[in-house]
Amino acid sequence: MYQSFDVTARPEQGPPRLQALRAELDAQGLSGFLIPRADAHQGEYVAPRDDRLVWLTGFTGSAGFCAVLPDVAGVFIDGRYRTQIKTQVADVYTPVPWPETGLADWLIDQMPSGGVIGFDPWLHTAGQIEQLTQALAGTGITLKPTDNMVDAIWDDQPGPAMAPAKVHPLEFAGESHADKRARLGTELARAGETAAIVTLPDSLCWLLNIRGADIHCNPVAQGFAVLHADARVDLFMADAKLDDVRDHLGAEVTTHDPDSFLTEIASLTGPVRMEKSSVPFIVADTMGDSGTWGDDPCALPKACKNPAEIEGSASAHLRDGAAVVELLAWLDAHAPGTVTEIQVATRLEAFRRNDNALQNISFDTIAGAGPNGAIAHYHVTEDTNLTLQDGHLLVLDSGGQYLDGTTDITRTIAIGTPGADECAAFTRVLMGMIAVSRLRWPVGLAGRDIEAIGRAPLWYAHQDFDHGLGHGVGAYLSVHEGPQRLSRASHVPLKPGMILSNEPGYYREGAFGIRIENLLVVEPATAPAHGDAHRAMLSWRTLTFVPIDRRLILPDEMDKASRDWLNAYHAEVLEKIGPRVSPGALIWLKNATAPI
Amino acid sequence: MYQSFDVTARPEQGPPRLQALRAELDAQGLSGFLIPRADAHQGEYVAPRDDRLVWLTGFTGSAGFCAVLPDVAGVFIDGRYRTQIKTQVADVYTPVPWPETGLADWLIDQMPSGGVIGFDPWLHTAGQIEQLTQALAGTGITLKPTDNMVDAIWDDQPGPAMAPAKVHPLEFAGESHADKRARLGTELARAGETAAIVTLPDSLCWLLNIRGADIHCNPVAQGFAVLHADARVDLFMADAKLDDVRDHLGAEVTTHDPDSFLTEIASLTGPVRMEKSSVPFIVADTMGDSGTWGDDPCALPKACKNPAEIEGSASAHLRDGAAVVELLAWLDAHAPGTVTEIQVATRLEAFRRNDNALQNISFDTIAGAGPNGAIAHYHVTEDTNLTLQDGHLLVLDSGGQYLDGTTDITRTIAIGTPGADECAAFTRVLMGMIAVSRLRWPVGLAGRDIEAIGRAPLWYAHQDFDHGLGHGVGAYLSVHEGPQRLSRASHVPLKPGMILSNEPGYYREGAFGIRIENLLVVEPATAPAHGDAHRAMLSWRTLTFVPIDRRLILPDEMDKASRDWLNAYHAEVLEKIGPRVSPGALIWLKNATAPI
Repeated sequence: MYQSFDVTARPEQGPPRLQALRAELDAQGLSGFLIPRADAHQGEYVAPRDDRLVWLTGFTGSAGFCAVLPDVAGVFIDGRYRTQIKTQVADVYTPVPWPETGLADWLIDQMPSGGVIGFDPWLHTAGQIEQLTQALAGTGITLKPTDNMVDAIWDDQPGPAMAPAKVHPLEFAGESHADKRARLGTELARAGETAAIVTLPDSLCWLLNIRGADIHCNPVAQGFAVLHADARVDLFMADAKLDDVRDHLGAEVTTHDPDSFLTEIASLTGPVRMEKSSVPFIVADTMGDSGTWGDDPCALPKACKNPAEIEGSASAHLRDGAAVVELLAWLDAHAPGTVTEIQVATRLEAFRRNDNALQNISFDTIAGAGPNGAIAHYHVTEDTNLTLQDGHLLVLDSGGQYLDGTTDITRTIAIGTPGADECAAFTRVLMGMIAVSRLRWPVGLAGRDIEAIGRAPLWYAHQDFDHGLGHGVGAYLSVHEGPQRLSRASHVPLKPGMILSNEPGYYREGAFGIRIENLLVVEPATAPAHGDAHRAMLSWRTLTFVPIDRRLILPDEMDKASRDWLNAYHAEVLEKIGPRVSPGALIWLKNATAPI
Repeated sequence: MYQSFDVTARPEQGPPRLQALRAELDAQGLSGFLIPRADAHQGEYVAPRDDRLVWLTGFTGSAGFCAVLPDVAGVFIDGRYRTQIKTQVADVYTPVPWPETGLADWLIDQMPSGGVIGFDPWLHTAGQIEQLTQALAGTGITLKPTDNMVDAIWDDQPGPAMAPAKVHPLEFAGESHADKRARLGTELARAGETAAIVTLPDSLCWLLNIRGADIHCNPVAQGFAVLHADARVDLFMADAKLDDVRDHLGAEVTTHDPDSFLTEIASLTGPVRMEKSSVPFIVADTMGDSGTWGDDPCALPKACKNPAEIEGSASAHLRDGAAVVELLAWLDAHAPGTVTEIQVATRLEAFRRNDNALQNISFDTIAGAGPNGAIAHYHVTEDTNLTLQDGHLLVLDSGGQYLDGTTDITRTIAIGTPGADECAAFTRVLMGMIAVSRLRWPVGLAGRDIEAIGRAPLWYAHQDFDHGLGHGVGAYLSVHEGPQRLSRASHVPLKPGMILSNEPGYYREGAFGIRIENLLVVEPATAPAHGDAHRAMLSWRTLTFVPIDRRLILPDEMDKASRDWLNAYHAEVLEKIGPRVSPGALIWLKNATAPI
């Protein structure tokens, strides 16, 4: 089992650890210390060694940070976690509503007499420290890079992640790392830069066509790299992880001990590109005037998948779709009141594991029934585990990591007989999801320019949802990948090959949740008859093929084009997935894909 | 008749005038001179005295400028005018595609040896000159503010516009100018500013509750003003224009001769706010370090109409709608092949004039049949005037200026039997127009965030249109008013009271055009049953009530909600406009508003 349903937060451990940390701060002459959730690579998940925020406070949310002062320890959390934190952390910690309360303002408020706040310069980005320094200017409060104070008191802290790196075959990568290095190196040269520093693991793994298993659900090998304009790469990764990839990397990739990273980059002649929003403060500080700000050179090329990656992702989705169909058929064979959320997640992982190509799940499955479905990022544990009851909606959001692609799918399933409000809202969410799936749009638009189309059906009913419409997805890499997003905040133009999720939802607190999610890949659109052939437009190819619960749809509320899309989609689901499922699931699938 | 259909461009006048201008440049020691279309107030229309670009070159487009050098005279025009310019200007002028070719690049290219380019410092904004100066830095080409070289050679140049200013009654303005001055003065004081310079005529007229007739279609009195933080105003306007408003302005508004403007502002103690994108270069130059950049303080308050302005606008639209309905009934009584575009525009103006409240048209009527309809900003003249033929679509875009409001409406009318492509495209345009009219959206969104909703029905068919979805509209002021817009370029959040047009279109060059336009006002939305009461959302109230041509609609292509909207709209048109039209038009109206 990849996923754990254990209750990991143990609030009672918080007070003694906080006490030990304060003693350490005292010994070091510090008035405070910052504990972010991030590691040096700013990923969504961290290795056990880097799970300092959970270890210290007990808070397990996917975003947040702690600031420990002599008399108060603030845990900064956003709106999603206001309830959860109450059960996870002891009352020696003070929840601080964030971003409503900024860290600088809070520090100024809590430390009127000034003081020195320590921070681990590997765990904060250059941009974060710059912003915080500016906000504290003139207050008498100063920031000081130090050793990590949590590590100093964490006796049984795990060691660094040491999973062996593996070659990502050219068959799936679609472009050799030599070609990638040459292509990106040329771009650096054209920009007048000598090199770029790569600190994001998925950028590094994409660039060198390697994968790893250092991080839960993310097939990455952690390390740092310097990409030179002449296409050479210096790779800083533990020697013990490199046995399987040494030949693959070849002579133009020089491997180094990670401990030599700062020394090596200090000798580089600039300008060396760094990404302000992701490079660790200490790296930027070491580069000094030789550094220059720019985008991670891998980000955009990685986002625009090549044909091998697109076809690989399409294949992975067929395999993954078959597993999800098996689960849905299994679930429908069980009466309300007989299955729990954990059983759903467990059984789904089992169906996915039946396929030998599965490498991992791509994130912890969200299986939320009834009121739990209204928690957009619900993580089921033994404590919260509900039995699926008549009238519940089940929000089931999950994905798999396959060698040829990463999947991410959400379906919302009626348990027993659904209510009228549930069906009305489901139909609206579906109409938004279809309106986006059917879309063509002029070349040059970004996610922000089309996001409203996925929300409008809800807006008409004075409803909405409080997360983005979609996120980028990697090719056997992170399930959340930038820079592309379907979000009001995203200014990055959509380009052919980008894979994004399309996942509108609706959440009624304490009652029910709805989310429908397919992955889509951007492709050039050809003008149909009577279209404007002179207009360059883009459209989507759908990758996900799993039925959408017809029992929750009000067909009369939909326009003909949307109904036609759904019926054509379901016909394609049956055609593509039917041959891949068990006889029992096939009977279920035929019924589930009948036209509305 | 307000509108003229004369062919004003006389290309043969261009060469001798250009020759005279070059002689004048020579005498003044200049190597070139810039002739913008704008006057000192940066409005869309200019007074005859300021029509220098037309006088010199013959080019009558609504945007563009000329740069005269010793050996070449470039007329910079955008894509809309590439055809028109060929018939309007003599070949001593060289059309330059703009903005593809920037002025600075063109000057550098045409004047390799450097030189001094003169410009009238009243006619270019501070922002324009700053940008041009930066682009020319290091090239040896310098800019020099001078007297206007066109005025120097224009013997029979008309005098300044001298229409008397009139009081805009409180009944329509809804807020006294004393209250406006106090409210805006307080904002200046809060921003730490002593005063603001107001150079936009509609801002000035809104602030002081006056109107005028200095400019075609725009009920403004031209002048400049300084608004002080203590609510006093210094008004720089010709004394002869002030007889009817002197009492109204009162003791807190001090009037001055316009010629004293620069002298007076030179003595102000700063910081004095100016808007970089509209303040004349010479004004900003005079202010020097006492000036500071900021938004025109009147822009946003003017855009958010108060209840009196909204109700006034609604009343004006009922009156205006009756006139348009009379025209449409009259037009339908005429067989194809019997009516010209000019007859339509003339007759429409006559119907509007039947109402004594009409002060002017709000812009020159666009009446484009068949291929002329595909020219988005078509201006019919005796030379282009087409007879409406069977199968034509007629794009009819027009508006009126009433004391209580400004209107702007477009309808597209089938002449005889429309073609299939025409009906299909019309239905798509209508669906976009209805999708926006029905919309609710979260507080805080700007035009850019919702514009896609008006385009999506066309996008699905690989079609689109090349103008914004909508623009702001004044209250008995300019028919194009900022800062609000329904455009991808607009970041200004929509606020209650803003009036905007909603006008999607479709244009097939050489064949036909389609545009459907209503004016809408933003208002707070109340959550209906089952809506999310905790969400603050906005919606529209429609102001325009005129039938949409049912002969061009394919009802089966529309969703039920859109059809319901259209039928409800038409029922409201009949109810509101029916009592206001002639018996013959009422019969027509009943038929035109029957449900689909």
